Amino acid sequence: MQFELDPVLAGDTFEVASFDLCEVRLMNDARFPWLILVPRREAAVEILDLEPADQDQLWKEIRAAAESLRRTCRPDKLNIAALGNQVAQLHVHVVARFRSDEAWPAPVWGSGRPRRYSRQDGDDILNALESTLTPAGQASE
Amino acid sequence: MQFELDPVLAGDTFEVASFDLCEVRLMNDARFPWLILVPRREAAVEILDLEPADQDQLWKEIRAAAESLRRTCRPDKLNIAALGNQVAQLHVHVVARFRSDEAWPAPVWGSGRPRRYSRQDGDDILNALESTLTPAGQASE
Repeated sequence: MQFELDPVLAGDTFEVASFDLCEVRLMNDARFPWLILVPRREAAVEILDLEPADQDQLWKEIRAAAESLRRTCRPDKLNIAALGNQVAQLHVHVVARFRSDEAWPAPVWGSGRPRRYSRQDGDDILNALESTLTPAGQASE
Repeated sequence: MQFELDPVLAGDTFEVASFDLCEVRLMNDARFPWLILVPRREAAVEILDLEPADQDQLWKEIRAAAESLRRTCRPDKLNIAALGNQVAQLHVHVVARFRSDEAWPAPVWGSGRPRRYSRQDGDDILNALESTLTPAGQASE
């Protein structure tokens, strides 16, 4: 089956990188540095639906994305979550959180309204993230 | 360093099982079948803080807990998350969600007030979960 990114996910995010298993997207919300990993497996809704090898690859890629956010943003805390109550297509959130951010200490979902990136700020974070993410799904040295 | 469960986590949960890496606890909130996995690594705050072998074991145990909840409760969706904005000790939430539950489709954190289990209901879900969880961190057949 052909993989197609859910249109809601596509509309809310920018393309950042393509890992072995996942598309890596940046949520267009300048309040929170926020990556979304979407395994290119059309029918997957739960992590448990993936083949075991894909599950292990997903774990590698989650950690690579988290490491990239940590290096790029130096957050106070990383939040990692697979929810999918609203968008069924399997996707994993990796969010850099700060004690000073608008939602802290609550989770980011449903908190206020997104603030879209300016062209310059969007380019800056995309460039910074891209320099620490590699296609193999491992953070670069 | 001696492992000690964070007192807030301990107070909100029941003991369910002890996996190779994690203590498995049941959140005392009858609104949501909700497991919490706590790696017995005192200083760990982020998943990235764990040794690589522990990270892989954690992933196994998360999936075992998710599989156990799926078999026991047949939820509409599983929610899996490592947040830790309020309790620093590394812990992972694995929650069985239903379209009919009180928070759906929002996340469970911060949603209303917990409803404590009755003695009987608590025993029932603990027994059901224990029968599908094994100490090796793998769901039993």
